[in-house]
This record gives sequence, structure tokens and C-alpha cells, in this order.
Amino acid sequence: MVKLNYNEIRHTPSLSPIQRNIHDIIFEADTLWGKVFDITLLILIFLSVTITALDSVDSLNIKYGSFFNTCEWVFTILFTIEYVLRLYCVAKPFHYAISFFGIIDLVAILPNYVGLFFPDVRFLSVVRILRFFRVFRLFKLVHFTHEVDVLVESLKRSIKRIGIFTFYVFIIVFCVGSVMYIIEGPENGFTSIPISVYWAVVTLTTVGYGDISPKTPLGQAFSFFIMLLGYGIIAIPTGIVTSEMLIPKKKVITTQSCPFCCREGHDADAKYCKYCGKPLED
Amino acid sequence: MVKLNYNEIRHTPSLSPIQRNIHDIIFEADTLWGKVFDITLLILIFLSVTITALDSVDSLNIKYGSFFNTCEWVFTILFTIEYVLRLYCVAKPFHYAISFFGIIDLVAILPNYVGLFFPDVRFLSVVRILRFFRVFRLFKLVHFTHEVDVLVESLKRSIKRIGIFTFYVFIIVFCVGSVMYIIEGPENGFTSIPISVYWAVVTLTTVGYGDISPKTPLGQAFSFFIMLLGYGIIAIPTGIVTSEMLIPKKKVITTQSCPFCCREGHDADAKYCKYCGKPLED
Amino acid sequence: MVKLNYNEIRHTPSLSPIQRNIHDIIFEADTLWGKVFDITLLILIFLSVTITALDSVDSLNIKYGSFFNTCEWVFTILFTIEYVLRLYCVAKPFHYAISFFGIIDLVAILPNYVGLFFPDVRFLSVVRILRFFRVFRLFKLVHFTHEVDVLVESLKRSIKRIGIFTFYVFIIVFCVGSVMYIIEGPENGFTSIPISVYWAVVTLTTVGYGDISPKTPLGQAFSFFIMLLGYGIIAIPTGIVTSEMLIPKKKVITTQSCPFCCREGHDADAKYCKYCGKPLED
Amino acid sequence: MVKLNYNEIRHTPSLSPIQRNIHDIIFEADTLWGKVFDITLLILIFLSVTITALDSVDSLNIKYGSFFNTCEWVFTILFTIEYVLRLYCVAKPFHYAISFFGIIDLVAILPNYVGLFFPDVRFLSVVRILRFFRVFRLFKLVHFTHEVDVLVESLKRSIKRIGIFTFYVFIIVFCVGSVMYIIEGPENGFTSIPISVYWAVVTLTTVGYGDISPKTPLGQAFSFFIMLLGYGIIAIPTGIVTSEMLIPKKKVITTQSCPFCCREGHDADAKYCKYCGKPLED
Repeated sequence: MVKLNYNEIRHTPSLSPIQRNIHDIIFEADTLWGKVFDITLLILIFLSVTITALDSVDSLNIKYGSFFNTCEWVFTILFTIEYVLRLYCVAKPFHYAISFFGIIDLVAILPNYVGLFFPDVRFLSVVRILRFFRVFRLFKLVHFTHEVDVLVESLKRSIKRIGIFTFYVFIIVFCVGSVMYIIEGPENGFTSIPISVYWAVVTLTTVGYGDISPKTPLGQAFSFFIMLLGYGIIAIPTGIVTSEMLIPKKKVITTQSCPFCCREGHDADAKYCKYCGKPLED
Repeated sequence: MVKLNYNEIRHTPSLSPIQRNIHDIIFEADTLWGKVFDITLLILIFLSVTITALDSVDSLNIKYGSFFNTCEWVFTILFTIEYVLRLYCVAKPFHYAISFFGIIDLVAILPNYVGLFFPDVRFLSVVRILRFFRVFRLFKLVHFTHEVDVLVESLKRSIKRIGIFTFYVFIIVFCVGSVMYIIEGPENGFTSIPISVYWAVVTLTTVGYGDISPKTPLGQAFSFFIMLLGYGIIAIPTGIVTSEMLIPKKKVITTQSCPFCCREGHDADAKYCKYCGKPLED
Repeated sequence: MVKLNYNEIRHTPSLSPIQRNIHDIIFEADTLWGKVFDITLLILIFLSVTITALDSVDSLNIKYGSFFNTCEWVFTILFTIEYVLRLYCVAKPFHYAISFFGIIDLVAILPNYVGLFFPDVRFLSVVRILRFFRVFRLFKLVHFTHEVDVLVESLKRSIKRIGIFTFYVFIIVFCVGSVMYIIEGPENGFTSIPISVYWAVVTLTTVGYGDISPKTPLGQAFSFFIMLLGYGIIAIPTGIVTSEMLIPKKKVITTQSCPFCCREGHDADAKYCKYCGKPLED
Repeated sequence: MVKLNYNEIRHTPSLSPIQRNIHDIIFEADTLWGKVFDITLLILIFLSVTITALDSVDSLNIKYGSFFNTCEWVFTILFTIEYVLRLYCVAKPFHYAISFFGIIDLVAILPNYVGLFFPDVRFLSVVRILRFFRVFRLFKLVHFTHEVDVLVESLKRSIKRIGIFTFYVFIIVFCVGSVMYIIEGPENGFTSIPISVYWAVVTLTTVGYGDISPKTPLGQAFSFFIMLLGYGIIAIPTGIVTSEMLIPKKKVITTQSCPFCCREGHDADAKYCKYCGKPLED
């Protein structure tokens, strides 16, 4: 996926005036028509997703099935036209097509066409809800974007530790599931190792559906320790994310810049630059 | 909603002596009668809510239904009189009526009257439990109020990040629910997309009722990842709230500035600047 | 409850030599016999609790009921003798009787006697497991005791905020339960307001038994928000406890004591006492 | 268990050239053949575990049972040869045999042989998934190893507090379970104290299977408080782990002490004392 710099594209000389106008309306939200277009698009997405969801309800499908079907095709055709226009009005259509939003825009229309051959797949068109992310751009929610950045940054820095953590959890649930399969056996609902591993995940994550639960005293005693383990394990990702989230806060505190070497990152109570030893101004 | 400054109202000259006396009893908790009134009110609220709750239990309703009914009407009439008195004894009745407690006081009596036409609605009168918040004022729990402020402040500052977080969770459960609907299908309890989304929420939040649970191996494998995802996701709001809660601690401490060396970061109980030893002003 | 200073009691002149010897064995763990006594006691407690637990299992009760019964009476009589001896060998028996361990020691033997009249109550004798706390004293687990102190101190400082938090949760579950009772009604398992409140607690705490779960679309949509709320709410006590736990760490850093006013609590980077303004020694 | 220093072993003079060559292939991942061996091994482990898991599924076992059986024996024989070679090519076979990976390597092949006498035990061979930990060594994931160290260190320092915490939880669930057994009784599914304790664990850890749930109003009211308690209790391990995780961050920063003013608390990248401006020694 390639992050597309729209401005760059816009000022590429190869675009004809028509392309530029369409581009201004479809890709920008600064002009009146751009805003009208974006808001209309959000409403259409919302309607389209809602109708797909309602269409899956049997009682509603029987009553309004053909109406829903018509709507969905109208939306799909509109989104297809929009997608083609987007491809048409950018200087590098391929760049757009493989960008994050380009892929989502394509994925949003494909399921309906594929649904002609595999009817169930058409429900996948609800993924066009992902197009809602454009809302951040439309309302110039830079502040929100910043918040997202902080969250994402925290998560990124935790990703390695969370990855290892997941790896360990995976191995633990596999071992726990296998032991449980031997303890409880098929007659108590633990019909196979995959099922037992599924039970282990359901238990360790404290979801606890209850569709499978230990019946023998030994199995229940074993579950006892698994649940206490899960108790401790749930603390780990929380600890990781929390401790990562506290790091940027400390960075913010250090606002001073050394007047001699211009380096930042001094503690609030520092009197001398810790890099060059010159006194800091208050 | 308008935050009402009671003192301001009290000293408004337009109030007659009777109004003032009633105001002192109903709105203040400094005088003996004021305290008696407030305690009586809390007891009545407690009794009223308890009776409404018990009235909803079938076995008790059959036995004591008419007694409960009488009680509820007595309470409702008493609360109505109180509400009218409150409106009468304040200088700006409209201000009171649209204040936080004014709305709650009204909502506490409305359900019974509406219940004459829609019987079930009368159970909504349990919302008069919200009037319990007056308890903070009655017992002069300023310290508690401060604690609440810290909590509320922490939450307020996290609200944006939690908002974005909720937005993402909403999109995730929608996509997850739809995929699950296609994987499992109506024959395994995932009768529609809304139901599947409901399942996704129940799973991601680790509630796990078990009324709907994946039956196919593919669905269970998919659930595996959703649950691990939920594991990670539950860490995020915790991280947000915890990191926000750690900020006020520091903020509260650092309010004073040394008048001599202008350094900040003194504890609330510091009398002398810890950097230059000069006395701090209070 | 009164915290008993054992040393004080021991050196009270009114104790006869026999009382002192018994006291040394029963209350102290420094002498050989004292250790033997304490270890024997822990073993007896463990056996007694295990037997009570096993006695409650039907299949075992039928086979070994009379044996279990005999054991339990032997244990009860032994613990009764021990309790009487404890009362006998302390200078202020009443002080002991109302101390934390004095009450637990009494509670540990009472259920069996009460069980003569109300058979089920005898199972309450498992609370003698609380006597296990003596284990900390026996093994001189001062380090553990310190750890417990840190935990308890953190919790104590959080208790007010957790109290308010519980108060709010109580009000929320009451309102949520009532609304759910009106939405779902008795035909979907929400048979009364107390049951609906119970459901609200089960859902908000993410326990999710599934014995009661929303059936109507409106109820499920409402649950959606309750669960997301629970998601956020679960973050609050975690945030409170975590932020409190981080405070003692900072306190520990402040080891300096002002040589003039002898007050402690100075920051690590303080040069002058913040209470009296005198310079601190490094 | 003894941590084995492979290098030390390798350079022990008692190894013959053949042993050294085998050692280089089996224990090292630096040479081409060493890498080929390790990757082959990981693939074999993965296949072996997958086949054992699939073998436990009834429908697959009926179809492909004999094929799975053959595969498992091939894998077991290969792993046995590998284990014997490992023992052969190290200078101190006993040291290897009792090292962490030595035990796992043995445990990975034993279940199949034991399975000849106790068929169910052969499923325990999935514990050979633990051999996956070698993956860290293979891909030189030193960075990951460091991350694991931080995690493990945090957990180690929390282990005491978590131990005490578990001890308390154990006592709480025992008491809660017993009280619940008396309240609900066998007719509501709480058939014995162990079962009730199991219910208490399932509830406190917010797993909530729902196979046992309170039926009487008193039991539900009691559960109410247990769940709120669990709410608070789940916060404790999280708080412990999080606060421990935040310490290394600070510890890493504060290692240097200024040689002139003896003040500590300098960042890892500080070259000059931030209090007196004198250069810091590295």
C-alpha cells in the first residue's frame, strides 16, 4: 500500500481541467461541492450498510427483500461510478488503486458483483463501513487525528511485546487445551483437541460462553488454575499498553530547549543542559 | 442544563419570607429542619424505589399489589408536592426546572402519571434513585465531591480518545459480525447481521453470554482471533483512564511558584521553596 | 476490633508461670514447642477444611459420612480447647476475644455447635480457613507482610474513590436494569426489576452467565451500549488502583529527613527542607 | 534444571570431530546445515502437532486414522533419533538431559511411547509445541529476547505480591463458595462445596460460564457483591504488573551519579550533571 499525496497529484500537469474539477469535488472537502459530495457519500454509505444489515434479517427480507435488493444495486452502481471517477481524475490511477482508501473503495463494491455467483458473499459489502474513516478528513478532525496518532504510536511501540505475548498465549492455550482434552474427554463436550483449545481461549480471555465447561472434579480443579492464570495474563497487555501510554506524557513535560546546543528533552527541574553543560534559561 | 447558584437565588429580593423559609428547609441542609427534611426525603426515595422494585416481582405483586400501588401513589403525590414547592420557593423557577436536579426531580414523578396510560412505564419511576446524588450535599461530603471531581476530570480528558476508541470498536464489531454471519450462517444461531454484531460485542467485551456461540471449526478459529483481539482491546480504555489519572496527581502538586527563584513543582504542603530555601506564599 | 499487642500482654505481671508457658507455646512461634504447635494447628485447619468440603459432596457423604462427622467433631473439640486455652493464658481475655484473630478463632468453632440445631450451618466451619492467615506470622514472612502492607495501603487510599465508584455503579445498574425490564419484559426472562438489576450486574462486570440474555432487537441494541459502558467502567477501578500503587514508589524515593525539623517526605532533588527552609544534607 | 552454556560444551576437548560436526548442525544455527536442520525441525514440529490435533477430531480420525498414526510414529522416531544425537554430541549428556530444552525434548517423544499402554496419553505429545521456543534462537531474535526479559523481570518482581494476592483469592473463593453452598444448596446446582468454590472462581474471574448460576433472590443479591468484588480484585494484578512495568523505565534512566555533587537521577544520554553542570563520567 502506498500513501498517496493528493496535493502532489493535483498539481501534476497531466490532468485536464475536467479531471481537476472532478478531483476537487471527489478528493477535496474545501469547496462547497466537495463538502456536498462527501456528506452525500457518508449518507449513502450509512444507508447502504444499514440496508445490507436489515436485508440479512429473515422477517424483513421476506417483506422488503426486492426493495432492499434494488437499493443495494443502486448503491453499488453509484459507488462503482464513483470508483471509476476516482481512477479517472487522479494522475496515477494505479497509485490510488493500491492506496489504503483505494483498496477499501474497491472492496466496498466487489462483494455485490461476486454475490451474483455466491449469494452469501454479498453481505460482505458491509465492509464499506470502513469508508467511514473518511469522516475524519471531511470534518477536519485534526485533533481527533492527533489522538489517533498517540493511540497508534503507543500500540506500535507495544506491538513487539504484544506479539511475544500472543505467541506465548498461543502455546499456553494449546498445551492447556490438550491436557483438558485428556482430563475431560469427548463425553464431557471436549470432543477434540481443537475444540479443547477453543475452550482454553474462551476461558483464558474470560469470555466464558459456557457451551463447553468442565464436568469432572479434576477438570474443574484444573480450570481453577487456568482461570487464575488468565487473571494474571489479562494484566499483561493492560500493563504493556498503559506503561507505553505514559511515555509520551513525560516527553511533553520537557519543553525547555538549551540556548547553546538547542537540544531538548531536559527535565523540568534541570538547571544545566545535560548534553553540553551550559546553564539553561528559566 | 444550567448549573444553579442557590446562594444567588436566595438573596434575590423578590422572595417573600415564606418562600425564603421554605427554601431554607428544602434547598439547604444547614438548619435543623433542613436536615430533617433531607433525611426524610432520602428515606422516602429509598422506600419508593424499593417498593417499585418489589412490585415488579410477580409473587409479591399478587399478594401485596394493591398495597404497593397505594404506597407508590402516596410517594408520587408527596414528591409532586415537593416539586411544586421547589418551583414556588426559588426566584427563577425556570432555571431550577432546567437544572440537573430539576430535571431529575420531574423525571422522578412523571412515570407514575404516564403509567396511568402505559402501565409498564410506571416502573421507570425507579430512576428517582438518581435523586440519591443529593446525599453528597446533605452530608457535606465535600471530600467525596473532590474525589468525584478528580474521577470526572480524568474521564473528561479521556473522553476524546475513548470516543475514537468506541468509533473503532463499532466499526470492528460490524465487520467481525458480518464475516461471522457468512461463516456460521443462520443454522448456527447467527440468524442475521445485527445478531452477529451483537455476538461480536458480547465476545469482544468478554461478557460471553453463550446464547450464541460459534459451532463450525472455521467460526471457532475466527473467534480465537477475535477474543485475542478483545484481550488487547480491553487494555486500551484501561490504559487511557490510568494514564489520565496519573496526570492530576502531578498537576495538583504543582500549583505554587516560588516568588524568589520562580521554580515550580512544590508539594501542596510545602512552606519553603525546595530549590532556594526562601519562604513560599500561600 | 482491637489490635492486640502480644508483647505487652506477655509482660503483664498478673500472668502465672503456667499461663506464661502456655502463652509461649500458643501465641509465640520462637520456641521449638511454639513452632510444633503452630505447624500442627495449620495441618489440623487444613485437614478440617478439606473434610468439611469433602463431606458436602453427596457421593462421598454417603460412603464416609459418619467418619467425616467424627473427624469434624474431633477437630471442633480440639479447636474449642485451644480457644479456651488462648482465653486462659492472656492477661486480658476480653481484648483477645474481640481482636481480629480472636473473632476468627471463635467463628471457626461456632458453626459446628450451631449445626446441631441447623444442620446446613455446619458447612460454615470452612471459614476456619481464615485462620490460615497465621501462616504469615509462623514463617516470619515479614517480607510478605510488607508486601501485604503496600497492597493494603494502596487499597486504603483508593477506598474512597472505589466507594464512590461502587455507589455510581449501583445507581447505574438499578437504572439499566429497570429500563431493560420494561424493554424485554417477563416473557424474555427479565421477570422482575431485581432480576433485571442482577442481569445488569452480570453484564456490566463482564461475567455474563447467559442464564438471562436479551432476546428482542431493542434489548440487544441497548445491551450493546451497556457492554461498551462496562468496558469503560472496568477501566476505572484498574486506573484507581494502578495510580495509587505508583504513589508509594515515589514516597520510597524520599528517604531524606530534615536534620532541623526531622520531617520527612522530601523529593529526591530537594536541596532545602520544604517545611522549615533549612538546607538538607545530601 | 541447569542452564546450559553451549559454547562451553562445544570447546570441551573430549568431543570427537564427528560429535563436533553433529553438534554444530543440531545445536548451532550459524552454518548453512545448522539452519537447514533447525528450519526442518520447526516444520516437523508444526506438522506433528497439527496431525496430533487433527487426529483427535472424530470425523477425521475415522477417515485418516491409520495415516495419522503412521505420521505420528514417523515423527516420534525422528525426534527420538534427534534426542539420542543430542545426547551423543554434547560433552555432558546429563547436563543437557536436565536442562530446560532437554526436558522438553524428552517430554516431546515420551507420550507416544507411553501411549502404547495408555492410548489417551499420546495426545500429550502436543506439548512438543513447547519446542517452538527454539524459534527465538534460530532467527536470532535477540531483540525479542530482550523484550521477553523485560516482561519476565517485571513478572518476577511482581511474583511475591501476585503470590499473596493468589493466596487471598484462594481464601476468598473458599469462603464465598461455602456461603453460596448454604444459600443456594444442591437443588440449585450448587451440589457441593468444591462445586460452589468452582462457581466462585468462575464468577470472580468474570469468566461466567453459566453452567452454575444463582437461582434464589438471596443468592443473586450475594452474587451482586461478589461480582463487584471481582471487579475490584481484577484491578489488583493489573495494577501490580503495570506499576512494576513502569519501574525498569525509571531504573534504566537513573544509574549514573555525578562525581562532583553526587546527585543521581540523570538520563541515560546525559553527559553533564543537570544540577551542577559538571561533566558526568561514562
